[in-house]
Amino acid sequence: MIPRYTRPSLAAIWSDAHRYDIWLRVELAACEAMEHAATVPSGTAAAVRARTEGKLDPARILEHEERTKHDVIAFLTHIEELAGEPARWLHLGMTSSDVLDASLAIQLGEAAHEILGGVDALREACRARATEHRATPMIGRSHGIHAEPITAGLVFAGFYAELGRARVAVQRAAEEVAVGKIAGAVGTYANLDPAVEARALRSLGLRPETVPTQIVSRDRHAAYFQALARLGASVERIAVTVRHWQRTEVGEAQEAFGKGQKGSSAMPHKKNPILSENLCGLARLMRSYQQAAMEDVALWHERDISHSSVERVIGPDATGICDFMVRRAASLVGGLVINADRMRRNLELTGGLFFSEAILLELVRKGLPRQSAYEMVQRNAMRAASALGLGSGAGQVPESETEGFRALLAADPDIRARLSSDEIDRACDLGHHLRHAADIVDRALLE
Amino acid sequence: MIPRYTRPSLAAIWSDAHRYDIWLRVELAACEAMEHAATVPSGTAAAVRARTEGKLDPARILEHEERTKHDVIAFLTHIEELAGEPARWLHLGMTSSDVLDASLAIQLGEAAHEILGGVDALREACRARATEHRATPMIGRSHGIHAEPITAGLVFAGFYAELGRARVAVQRAAEEVAVGKIAGAVGTYANLDPAVEARALRSLGLRPETVPTQIVSRDRHAAYFQALARLGASVERIAVTVRHWQRTEVGEAQEAFGKGQKGSSAMPHKKNPILSENLCGLARLMRSYQQAAMEDVALWHERDISHSSVERVIGPDATGICDFMVRRAASLVGGLVINADRMRRNLELTGGLFFSEAILLELVRKGLPRQSAYEMVQRNAMRAASALGLGSGAGQVPESETEGFRALLAADPDIRARLSSDEIDRACDLGHHLRHAADIVDRALLE
Amino acid sequence: MIPRYTRPSLAAIWSDAHRYDIWLRVELAACEAMEHAATVPSGTAAAVRARTEGKLDPARILEHEERTKHDVIAFLTHIEELAGEPARWLHLGMTSSDVLDASLAIQLGEAAHEILGGVDALREACRARATEHRATPMIGRSHGIHAEPITAGLVFAGFYAELGRARVAVQRAAEEVAVGKIAGAVGTYANLDPAVEARALRSLGLRPETVPTQIVSRDRHAAYFQALARLGASVERIAVTVRHWQRTEVGEAQEAFGKGQKGSSAMPHKKNPILSENLCGLARLMRSYQQAAMEDVALWHERDISHSSVERVIGPDATGICDFMVRRAASLVGGLVINADRMRRNLELTGGLFFSEAILLELVRKGLPRQSAYEMVQRNAMRAASALGLGSGAGQVPESETEGFRALLAADPDIRARLSSDEIDRACDLGHHLRHAADIVDRALLE
Amino acid sequence: MIPRYTRPSLAAIWSDAHRYDIWLRVELAACEAMEHAATVPSGTAAAVRARTEGKLDPARILEHEERTKHDVIAFLTHIEELAGEPARWLHLGMTSSDVLDASLAIQLGEAAHEILGGVDALREACRARATEHRATPMIGRSHGIHAEPITAGLVFAGFYAELGRARVAVQRAAEEVAVGKIAGAVGTYANLDPAVEARALRSLGLRPETVPTQIVSRDRHAAYFQALARLGASVERIAVTVRHWQRTEVGEAQEAFGKGQKGSSAMPHKKNPILSENLCGLARLMRSYQQAAMEDVALWHERDISHSSVERVIGPDATGICDFMVRRAASLVGGLVINADRMRRNLELTGGLFFSEAILLELVRKGLPRQSAYEMVQRNAMRAASALGLGSGAGQVPESETEGFRALLAADPDIRARLSSDEIDRACDLGHHLRHAADIVDRALLE
Repeated sequence: MIPRYTRPSLAAIWSDAHRYDIWLRVELAACEAMEHAATVPSGTAAAVRARTEGKLDPARILEHEERTKHDVIAFLTHIEELAGEPARWLHLGMTSSDVLDASLAIQLGEAAHEILGGVDALREACRARATEHRATPMIGRSHGIHAEPITAGLVFAGFYAELGRARVAVQRAAEEVAVGKIAGAVGTYANLDPAVEARALRSLGLRPETVPTQIVSRDRHAAYFQALARLGASVERIAVTVRHWQRTEVGEAQEAFGKGQKGSSAMPHKKNPILSENLCGLARLMRSYQQAAMEDVALWHERDISHSSVERVIGPDATGICDFMVRRAASLVGGLVINADRMRRNLELTGGLFFSEAILLELVRKGLPRQSAYEMVQRNAMRAASALGLGSGAGQVPESETEGFRALLAADPDIRARLSSDEIDRACDLGHHLRHAADIVDRALLE
Repeated sequence: MIPRYTRPSLAAIWSDAHRYDIWLRVELAACEAMEHAATVPSGTAAAVRARTEGKLDPARILEHEERTKHDVIAFLTHIEELAGEPARWLHLGMTSSDVLDASLAIQLGEAAHEILGGVDALREACRARATEHRATPMIGRSHGIHAEPITAGLVFAGFYAELGRARVAVQRAAEEVAVGKIAGAVGTYANLDPAVEARALRSLGLRPETVPTQIVSRDRHAAYFQALARLGASVERIAVTVRHWQRTEVGEAQEAFGKGQKGSSAMPHKKNPILSENLCGLARLMRSYQQAAMEDVALWHERDISHSSVERVIGPDATGICDFMVRRAASLVGGLVINADRMRRNLELTGGLFFSEAILLELVRKGLPRQSAYEMVQRNAMRAASALGLGSGAGQVPESETEGFRALLAADPDIRARLSSDEIDRACDLGHHLRHAADIVDRALLE
Repeated sequence: MIPRYTRPSLAAIWSDAHRYDIWLRVELAACEAMEHAATVPSGTAAAVRARTEGKLDPARILEHEERTKHDVIAFLTHIEELAGEPARWLHLGMTSSDVLDASLAIQLGEAAHEILGGVDALREACRARATEHRATPMIGRSHGIHAEPITAGLVFAGFYAELGRARVAVQRAAEEVAVGKIAGAVGTYANLDPAVEARALRSLGLRPETVPTQIVSRDRHAAYFQALARLGASVERIAVTVRHWQRTEVGEAQEAFGKGQKGSSAMPHKKNPILSENLCGLARLMRSYQQAAMEDVALWHERDISHSSVERVIGPDATGICDFMVRRAASLVGGLVINADRMRRNLELTGGLFFSEAILLELVRKGLPRQSAYEMVQRNAMRAASALGLGSGAGQVPESETEGFRALLAADPDIRARLSSDEIDRACDLGHHLRHAADIVDRALLE
Repeated sequence: MIPRYTRPSLAAIWSDAHRYDIWLRVELAACEAMEHAATVPSGTAAAVRARTEGKLDPARILEHEERTKHDVIAFLTHIEELAGEPARWLHLGMTSSDVLDASLAIQLGEAAHEILGGVDALREACRARATEHRATPMIGRSHGIHAEPITAGLVFAGFYAELGRARVAVQRAAEEVAVGKIAGAVGTYANLDPAVEARALRSLGLRPETVPTQIVSRDRHAAYFQALARLGASVERIAVTVRHWQRTEVGEAQEAFGKGQKGSSAMPHKKNPILSENLCGLARLMRSYQQAAMEDVALWHERDISHSSVERVIGPDATGICDFMVRRAASLVGGLVINADRMRRNLELTGGLFFSEAILLELVRKGLPRQSAYEMVQRNAMRAASALGLGSGAGQVPESETEGFRALLAADPDIRARLSSDEIDRACDLGHHLRHAADIVDRALLE
């Protein structure tokens, strides 16, 4: 785990100490279930717990592992050191993976819990900005080119909705991976009982694998990392949007700039969207991790251990980075400095050309064939665009009002023969154009 | 689409003719909804339908596209050729993506339907083999090394269960992508109405996008291709298993061999698991396609069109190959020649060494500390293993019964002091070992 | 292969007819080498060639394959149909992969040749634009934010240099894959001779695999697809740059717009960077294909055939798309409408703030500690930036010249105490700032 | 970096302390070059070096970074603390990336050096085993099915050759990335000089970027990680081979088993190929990292910083894991317990059926049409195979010699009419079959 991109709570989940604590919980849960099934003397788990809980020494376990090259045996040896005789009843009929897979499931669940908390914070930030700017007009862009007006609120509502879908995906993946097995060497309960497994796993918040092999099936884990990668891609979409908005020539929003933060050693006015760029890089990593996880599914026979090295790396890294991403994105969205004036100014760059479709449709409604209407609108739009220098790049305020799109329409006799000045005005009405925007935002925020 | 790996029904879904038919359905559905909203003259859709349905000429549309470089405009031009005046009411206030995205959603839905049919066939094949071999003992292997006994039915039941999870994933992904938008250039319904969209999409079996941009959000499509990749990986697990079983030295199952099929031009006895190997390669492609789809999520602003080239390729290819995979896997599993005798022979290769754990546990239950029990069992297991040549590779039948594991146990005074011959026999009982196998199979097949 | 993204010359390389022609060339090359080694009667190859060259019937071969399920046997059967008795000497001691791998190597070589031709065309286009605009000033941007001036020529020279590196990579990969084997079933020349292989492959323009198995080692092919993916990523960088330049608010360049091409049915002025967006999507596919190829390296033992399905798809698709990409990129760069005026206007948006570093360094050279110099420059830069509205987005021409950065510096007594007006002017000299630009361009174009 | 998979020497390369040392070297190299160009007072670098070398305090720098949020500024502040006045001449006209990219290039070069050392060790191990077993016969397998004989030495020679290719790829990638820039904010040398850059970089063992932007072009880094992924895949092929050889039913080789190592807590004879499985998992990670690096190429304009988070993770992780892989693979190959007896026993499992092709060719040489010869051989091979139980899985020694392939051939009158007993024997001669094996090994080891 790279500390720079890992919150302490995620680091804790993947710490040695925490892992050993979970192993102990799993062993004791199994032991208690065996006590209930009367295959282990009553009181064993309680006795072991009393002598071990809070007393595990990770360094000591690692010493044992150095020697035995087997992590679970090293752990059990340490338990025996602490708990003495009753420890011999632990792990009865179990295999290492019974402990390891239940433990991994618990860790992945804890990580998902943290990540989902971050998603909620991020969604709340999006909701707040969507509400705040539900009626703030800005130009919508396709292909990076001005298209028709939208509102800034719509963009945030879109993020909110998309994150809602990613949330469901992570939630489902977390459920799918909340599975363990206490079924022995090849999953047959040869020296165990399915009832023991059911009881033990239930007490750990897990369900039994339907058909265990030596391990829990790795399609579950692959799906988990797929869900994280998907969440990462949705965060990336937010980040890419902010990067575009913050471009010098666009300037519609800016990442919050910390007091005393320095953008550049030489250009003091420079404020760079570095949080967003960072999130884009992390999204690439999330996509990568998924790919390795997908190759872990087709293990050999009842298991091979090739998935283990992958999971040792991507378990902590993918969850740590994903959690970091949603938290960082939440503060990015929450702190974003939105410049509604600049949005309005950019919106007006093309002098209302985006109303051309509304005029066209109005002419069609008046009975004109679509093609004729198109040509009438087009010749005025072309002339207005040319006056704006749009053919060679927008950005110039039209020299004269008489060359603006609205003025040209009003001066075109073919159009004036069909549309009154009032009708043209109604077609060129931003309010009318955006009449559904607030409803879409509201509809999205209900979900 | 590569014909070799595409069934005709999938090829049909992605044919030009079918796509244009769907485009027409979408345009007419929108038109009818507008008629209902009284923004288009009643009867328009019916008139257009009467003059166009079954009469679209893909070649003619492609001619138009050659000239206009715009597929949807080319299509509408052709509709106008066929339907005349009423056609001018089509596409009113709509943008090309309104048609394209609804159409893609329908195609992905149709493809998912075919794929799910294949999954069902494959699961049925697994269910049949699981039932047939629910009690056929075979050796379970971890790391490719003999571990403890399982049944062949368990393996198939495991495939059945895993495919059930993949099925749910594909089903959910298909639902998530069953979404369209009829909301205009940037998704604001500037010249449309959400009610028209809702009515039109409902009639097409789709739901409206929560917050449309110019397009339906691409996280939905990414999730779809993730689900296919996951299904591919689960099929790969089956294929890898068959490849292992069919190895010359293992020989526990073989792909069905067609009459007159030739394995090799020189070695007439050679039967290769080529279907399974083929499936492994195709699973790699499925993983690849997913990766491209993930990069389509973070489009610029209200859309850029970079996703389009990706989807033109992986829409047909990923669904076509995935459908092919599940169908081929179904016939692979259905036709598999399972050699229960060979399974039994392989099971016996280690002379019952896999009962060592049962003996160990029996000694612990008799009160022996685990470590002492372990050593007693180990010394006999080691000796038996050595007699089998297992240290340097298994495969030899033990020279003499007296060196077999069971015989050695019976001859060890420390063990005989604690376990009677009957108790040893009970611990070395394959039936006892596998007593839960059938239940696991049954439990899995219920789902 | 998707026709939309495949040039005819690439489609031809992967056509059935061409593949069979190559197979015939390989068989005859081997036969001639055997004749030279006197293990086959002299004149055999000539006789077979006379009766088959130009007469192969792909449909007939596919008929045979339908029956035998073996492509090479089907091919040989057809050769026998055409050539009669002498055909029995073909393929002597050879295995199918001897033919298939040499053939694939030839096809990959042909494809690389086409791709490299496209790279050359693309580099020529970049060279021309670099030369044309070697002195055209534009603002350099980091993080999408104005940084310091560059020239447009530098950007194209950068593309030129990067494509040169990609070219070397593709060239090397093509050499690495120009390898065949005529070494029999498991690469031991059991019924062949290395000398025959050497002679035959040399005549085909190939080298022998160092240690053949049944096939040529797949790390070579993986490296080939890696090189194509790398080339794709470098084309993507060009495409992303164009997309940024063409943004409405930037407008520094535009894709050429075909006569009669329609950007949008409703907004006639709309010109979208669709070629560039298309290239970005295709680059994603190139990255994907590489991933599948990488999984083909670790085949089982002396070969398994899982790589075959991957190669059947990505052989044609990855080379076809890559070739298409470089050709399209060449015409994109060649046709790009570059707007030097707009570049200049954008450059001036910040009123020369980018000279702040030059002033800072000048003050340091005058003996001021860096920190003091920084503060002096900063306070003026901040004030100038604020007058420009840069804190909340650039784009406004400063209200008054007296608030411009240059004017503020001249009015600051601390600065004027150290720098004369002339010295300030020299530090704020765009020509001086860009004095090395043309040299960098020239240096790059020499390579 | 995950300690479990990182050697100390790799951890050291990526440590904070080492990175700061390199930064200092870069700053001083630039300073000395400026002294040489007389733009900085002579003796500056020497003075700074005297006061800083070996005295950098990483913790103190991190403190500064905590406040400034800028790593290079924090570093320079610390240098100033230590070196006082002369420090103000450092970094003159430079941008942070001038330091960072040169530093990264040096670290990647150091890592490549370690990795290449590991590759050499691994190749030496392969060479030794190839030499040792150049004449050890084993059965070659295609599709996991017995094909024709090879020698064990051939397999290792193949690994040796493939690793040689991977080595070249890593070496070239290391050269391609051995590039820096000291060219200022956007690579124009606005306040610098190319001669200073050339001198400084040369002293650091680096070359200047042909056309720098703010940074060194990221296609170079992508190629570096591609080369590591390729190396990983070639190591994976070795690992997969060992896993197959160690299967219980095959038993041709085994990973060395440490004294006191425990394979399983219950089955004392169990020895699992865990090193090889581990390597397979790590190869998946290497493939993943490459994918993220490929997405870093197309940065925005003169740079965006999205690559940075990717590199912070995969720089250390990919190099650390790759180095670990080659070292582990070297000890795996070196320690491998090869069981030549078992190889021989497996080779004989099919009773010489693999000579069928030799017989076939002998009959063709005697003038028989290929098809007739094929049928004659086939009927005997089929009968022999059936006697071996090969149709339903190999592994049984033929009941009677008279049913062996050789005996059947000798008893077939059609064959005996054409081939003498001696001729049959010569065709069934393993020595003849493998006559080229040693030469191939020798040829490979020369490279």
